[in-house]
Amino acid sequence: MSLIENLEWRHATKAYDPTKKVSETDLNKILEAIRLAPTSSGLQQFRVVVVEDQETKNKLVNGALNPECVTDCSHILVFAAWDNYTDEKIDKVYDLTTDERDLPRGRFDSYTSQLKESLSQLTNEQHFEHAAKQSYIGLGLALAQAAELRIDSTPAEGFNSKVFDEVLDLPAKGLKSTVIMYLGYSDTSKDWLSTMKKVRVPMDEFVIRVK
Amino acid sequence: MSLIENLEWRHATKAYDPTKKVSETDLNKILEAIRLAPTSSGLQQFRVVVVEDQETKNKLVNGALNPECVTDCSHILVFAAWDNYTDEKIDKVYDLTTDERDLPRGRFDSYTSQLKESLSQLTNEQHFEHAAKQSYIGLGLALAQAAELRIDSTPAEGFNSKVFDEVLDLPAKGLKSTVIMYLGYSDTSKDWLSTMKKVRVPMDEFVIRVK
Repeated sequence: MSLIENLEWRHATKAYDPTKKVSETDLNKILEAIRLAPTSSGLQQFRVVVVEDQETKNKLVNGALNPECVTDCSHILVFAAWDNYTDEKIDKVYDLTTDERDLPRGRFDSYTSQLKESLSQLTNEQHFEHAAKQSYIGLGLALAQAAELRIDSTPAEGFNSKVFDEVLDLPAKGLKSTVIMYLGYSDTSKDWLSTMKKVRVPMDEFVIRVK
Repeated sequence: MSLIENLEWRHATKAYDPTKKVSETDLNKILEAIRLAPTSSGLQQFRVVVVEDQETKNKLVNGALNPECVTDCSHILVFAAWDNYTDEKIDKVYDLTTDERDLPRGRFDSYTSQLKESLSQLTNEQHFEHAAKQSYIGLGLALAQAAELRIDSTPAEGFNSKVFDEVLDLPAKGLKSTVIMYLGYSDTSKDWLSTMKKVRVPMDEFVIRVK
């Protein structure tokens, strides 16, 4: 199936069947699609936290606008971005890149020096906001990959990031949650959106052609 | 081809062949994938500006870190987000949704009232930052769709948004540019990244499993 067919198929699932689990094979494909997402300067400045066990889910319930999705979905993917940029983090990424490409370390020094200089003029909050945006590229690809596998999902900003960060011990990892995604299989008897038409702004309004 | 194969195929193209153009059919598929992107509360709070003509590209050159990509690519997609949220914009989206679903207008009033109330507590700058994130979901899907069609592309934050906004007359439309994407066909003789290995953080570092 094409990407467009997959995107037409998906919807933001409102209720999950708690008896159905996403297989490890399928989960790994979704995670791989996210890992392959391009990011600004190739930094991959976010991580994905996978929550599956019920005890952790129960702790997250208080921080979610859709508590039933938390408890009934198969997995929760929590996208979590770097809380700031440091020279050390940037060097680590570029050392990996040059090592993997059999290039001398420092091959991209002129680029990374400029990058570090421009980032040094921003606040930690601006660093995080920039990193957070990159995680949304990954979110888009995760939704597409889940749809390709005919796995239901829900992208969600409706959660308390402070609760999630604390339960998942993210500050200790230099991360803050940005957006989450529920994965699983719809309980169509409760998933009111599953039968509704997908509505989007018409193409001639959504796209502006410059002549 | 699967999404993962498509993502493995793509890279951030560094030089384009100016003689090769993306067909209108393919361009429309890429725009459709973006249009189908899910967005926060379904608001589709961004638009895509398509720049094809050389005169406009020449005006954008001054605002781009990769001037040769601007002049030589087939099309530039400029993602542009709402500069703020207003009750009127929200109502317009939900009126479209209820009309298309043959539901009475106001069917989602309790939801949109809460949404308007929470958005009223944020600044216009925070509105824009939130809307901008949604455009990155669309960016991810656009990159995936281009790759499915074996069209080269480059996601780019390296541009001066003030220049782009002015040239494209975005403030008059209530929009501000967030991220851009070049589309076309690689000039492999100059595209130094085309032969290099794609490098990503190893899966066991990228993903954090909560047990």
